Amino acid sequence: MANITKKRIAIIGAGPCGLSQLIAFKQAEKEQRIELICFERQAEWGGLWQYTALTGIDPCGELIHSSMYRHLWTNGPKEMLEYVDYPFEKHFGRAVSSYPPRAIMYDYIIGRATAADIHKFIRFRTAVRFVNFDVNTKQFHVTIQDLLNEKILEHLTFDHVIVATGHYTLPNVPNFEGISKFPGRVLHSHDYRGADEFVDKNILIIGGSYSAEDIGIQCYKFGARSITISYRSFPMNFKWPDNIKEVPMLIRMEGHTAYFKDGTSVDNIDCIILCTGYRHNHSYMAEPLRLYCSGNLFIPSNLYKGIFWSPELRLAYLGMQNQTYSLNMFDIQAALVRDVFLGYVKLPDDDDEKKREEDISQWQAREQVIAANDHEGFTDLQTDYIRDIVSCCDQNTVPKFDLERAKAGFYKFFNDKREDFITFRDQTFTSIFPPYNEAPPCQIKWTKNMDDSIEGYLSSIKTT
Amino acid sequence: MANITKKRIAIIGAGPCGLSQLIAFKQAEKEQRIELICFERQAEWGGLWQYTALTGIDPCGELIHSSMYRHLWTNGPKEMLEYVDYPFEKHFGRAVSSYPPRAIMYDYIIGRATAADIHKFIRFRTAVRFVNFDVNTKQFHVTIQDLLNEKILEHLTFDHVIVATGHYTLPNVPNFEGISKFPGRVLHSHDYRGADEFVDKNILIIGGSYSAEDIGIQCYKFGARSITISYRSFPMNFKWPDNIKEVPMLIRMEGHTAYFKDGTSVDNIDCIILCTGYRHNHSYMAEPLRLYCSGNLFIPSNLYKGIFWSPELRLAYLGMQNQTYSLNMFDIQAALVRDVFLGYVKLPDDDDEKKREEDISQWQAREQVIAANDHEGFTDLQTDYIRDIVSCCDQNTVPKFDLERAKAGFYKFFNDKREDFITFRDQTFTSIFPPYNEAPPCQIKWTKNMDDSIEGYLSSIKTT
Repeated sequence: MANITKKRIAIIGAGPCGLSQLIAFKQAEKEQRIELICFERQAEWGGLWQYTALTGIDPCGELIHSSMYRHLWTNGPKEMLEYVDYPFEKHFGRAVSSYPPRAIMYDYIIGRATAADIHKFIRFRTAVRFVNFDVNTKQFHVTIQDLLNEKILEHLTFDHVIVATGHYTLPNVPNFEGISKFPGRVLHSHDYRGADEFVDKNILIIGGSYSAEDIGIQCYKFGARSITISYRSFPMNFKWPDNIKEVPMLIRMEGHTAYFKDGTSVDNIDCIILCTGYRHNHSYMAEPLRLYCSGNLFIPSNLYKGIFWSPELRLAYLGMQNQTYSLNMFDIQAALVRDVFLGYVKLPDDDDEKKREEDISQWQAREQVIAANDHEGFTDLQTDYIRDIVSCCDQNTVPKFDLERAKAGFYKFFNDKREDFITFRDQTFTSIFPPYNEAPPCQIKWTKNMDDSIEGYLSSIKTT
Repeated sequence: MANITKKRIAIIGAGPCGLSQLIAFKQAEKEQRIELICFERQAEWGGLWQYTALTGIDPCGELIHSSMYRHLWTNGPKEMLEYVDYPFEKHFGRAVSSYPPRAIMYDYIIGRATAADIHKFIRFRTAVRFVNFDVNTKQFHVTIQDLLNEKILEHLTFDHVIVATGHYTLPNVPNFEGISKFPGRVLHSHDYRGADEFVDKNILIIGGSYSAEDIGIQCYKFGARSITISYRSFPMNFKWPDNIKEVPMLIRMEGHTAYFKDGTSVDNIDCIILCTGYRHNHSYMAEPLRLYCSGNLFIPSNLYKGIFWSPELRLAYLGMQNQTYSLNMFDIQAALVRDVFLGYVKLPDDDDEKKREEDISQWQAREQVIAANDHEGFTDLQTDYIRDIVSCCDQNTVPKFDLERAKAGFYKFFNDKREDFITFRDQTFTSIFPPYNEAPPCQIKWTKNMDDSIEGYLSSIKTT
C-alpha cells in the first residue's frame, strides 16, 4: 500500500453510516496516521436508531433528529443487513429472530461501535454549520458550533469531508387544500411516537410507502378505530385487516371530512398522519458542494458511484440512497471511501469527469425504467450496485457478503409481505453467512407482542 | 426635515412588528424616496397571529413559525393594544368586547395593513439566510433564498436592516430525567393546537407563565380529566378549578408517573406539555450583529433604547422585549426607527457608545429588582420605557396614547385575573381614547364559548 502523508478527515454524523466509516478508518489506523473527527449534533450515537419521546426541537434548539417510534420492529429481515464482521449471535450470545425490535437493533449497532473503540473520535453536541472548499489549498473549511455554548464557533480545516447525516430527518410536507384548517391533529411521521395515542381514533394516513404501511399496521395493532391510507400513485394492495382501507390521493379536507381523487370521502377523521417522506437537507454545505436530491433516487446526480462528489472527489456522501440494503451496504461504501481517501485504490475515472457522469447516467437510466412498486427490480439494481462498489475496493479488506443469498432473502421478504402483511414479521430467514443457520422464531406473534424491550424480546426467543 | 438621499431598507418579517414598521415608512414615502423590501418566510402576513393545524416543518422545509392554537382568545384586554390610528370599532363597524378571539385579532391587524397598502413591499416565501455588515462601505449584505425554488440564492445590499422576526417560534426545551422515555405524548406549547385533543386525559404542564396558564385553563374548558402545572420558581396561585393544581418543579418521569421537587408525585400522566417558553433565534445574523437574548429580558444587552444595535446603529431589532404592551408599542418603536433611519431625529448619544451602554445598564438595573411575578412592576417599567421612546421621536408624527390610562387598564386586568381566573375574559374595559367608551360584553361566558370564528363572535356581542 502507498505511503500517504497524514490526512485530516471529517465525518459529519455518528449514525449507522458515520459509525461504519469510523470503523473502516480505524482498521487502517495501524498503517498510517489519520486525524479523524466525527461531528455529531446529538448527545448520543446511533443516529435514527435512537428513540426519544420528544418531538419538534431538542434541548439545544436543533430539530429532533430521529423519526423513531415506540414499538418499531425492523421492517426487513435482520439477516439481510447483518454486519459481516459482527453477527447478531456474537453480540447477544444467542440467536435472535429475523425481525427484532428497535432496542435490539440499537444495542447491536452500538455494540459493534463500542467493540471497535471509536467513541473517542466523536465530538458530540457539535453541529456543523458550514462547509466550504478552497480550490487553491484543496482544503475544506468547516465551521462547527458547540451546542452547549451557542456562542462558540470554531473553524477547522480538513483534507476530506464525509457527509453521513442521513435523510430521514427533515419532513417532506405536501400541501393539501383545507389541511391547515383541519380541526384535529395533523402530524408528519417524523413526529409520530406511538399508536397508543390513537386508540379508538379514525386515522387518515397520507402516503404509500414504508412509513405509511408500518404506521398503518401499528395503528391497527394498538386499536385505532379505522385507518384510511391515501396513496399518490398506486395502492400498496396488501391484504389489510377490515378496518384498513386504501384510497386515492387526498384532494381536500373540509372539517373532519376527507375528499379523495376518486370522488369518495371519509367523515369523522380525528387525525391526519403525513407519511410523505423526507427531504435531503445539506444546507450547511456551500452551494458548490451541496447535494440536492429529491424523491427516492437511488443514484443521485453528482454522486459518482453513489458516493463521491463529482467533480470534487475529496468529498463523499454516505448512505444517501433510498435503500433496500442498509448496514452491510454502508460498510462497503465506507470501505471504498477509506480505500480511495487513503490512496489504497484509485477510483476508475478519477481524472475524467465526463466518464464519471456517463457512469452516473447509466445507473440512473437503469433506475428510471423500474416501476415504483417493483421492489424486486430495485433490489436487483442495488445488488448490482453493491457488486460494483465491492469491485472498486481493496479486495483484501472489503467486507464482502453473499449477494445472491441476500437478494433471494429480500425476494422472500417481499413475498411474505404480499402473502400476509399481518404475519410477515413472524417469518424466519436463514443467515447469508455459513453455516446458513435458520433464525429461531419469536414465540409471540407480532400482532400480539406488546413488549419491545430487549429483555422482553430475548425471553420470547426459543433457545435451542 | 433633512433632505436625505435614497435609502435601501430591509425588514425581516411581516408579522405585527414588520407591519408596524412598513406602515411607519409608508407614511414617510411622500417626503423622500425609500427602497423598502420586507422579507417573509411564510406565505401570508400576520406572523404569529396566523393559525395552521400543521406542526413541525412547513411545506417549504422551514420550521412552522406560529405557535397559535385553536380557541385562543386574547390574554389581555384589546383596549391596551389598540392602534392609535385604527380603532377596532372603525375596522369592524361596531364595538367589540375586550377579549376577542384570534380570528378577530388577525382580521384587525391585517385590516390595517391592507388599508395602508403595504402588501406590495413584501416578498413572501423568502427566507433571509445571512446578514453581514461591511464596515468600509457601511452596507449590509443580505443573502435571501426563494423557498419555492431552494436553489436560488440572491445577494442584496441595504443601508439599514430591521429585524422583526419575533421570538415565539423556537421552543426552549429544558431537559428532565426520564422524559425522553415517557410512554406517552410530549409536546412543546409551540406544537399545541387545541385542547380537544386532550379530552379525558391527565395532562402535565411544565411552566408557570402565560402559555401554562392559558393552555391549562383551555384544557379545563374542553374537558381534560386533570391538569397538573409544574412551576420552576413559584406558583401562579390563581383560584383554579378543582381539577387544576400547581406543583413544584418536575424532578423526573418514570413511566406515566411524575415526581416533583417537594417529594410528591402524580400517576397516570397521559401527556406532557412543555410551556417552557421560547428562544430568540437570530442564527442568520453574522456573529457581530447577532442578538443573544436568553430568558425574559425586557431590555436585552446591546440594544440601545431596546431597539438599536449598539455599536452599529444602522441595525434595529423590533419587538424583542418580553411584552406587556404590544401592538401600540411596536408602532412607537417603528416610529423611532423611521425617524432615526431617515434622519428626522438624532438619537441621543448616537456618537457615544459608552453613554448608550450606561442607558442600557440603567434600564436593566431597574428591571433586575422587579420580582418575576410582579406584573404591575413590569408594567410600570414598560410604561416608562414607552414614554422614553416617545420622547425620542418626532413629536409631530409619533402615535402617542394615554399611557396612564393604559397602565391603569393593565392593573385592572391583573386584578381581574387574581380575583377570578375563570371569568377574567368576561370583564370589559373602557377605551384609552376619547370618549373613553366602555366595551360591550360578550353575551356568552368565555368558559361556555366554543365558537371562536369571526361570525360567531360578532353575533355574540350586544350592539347598542
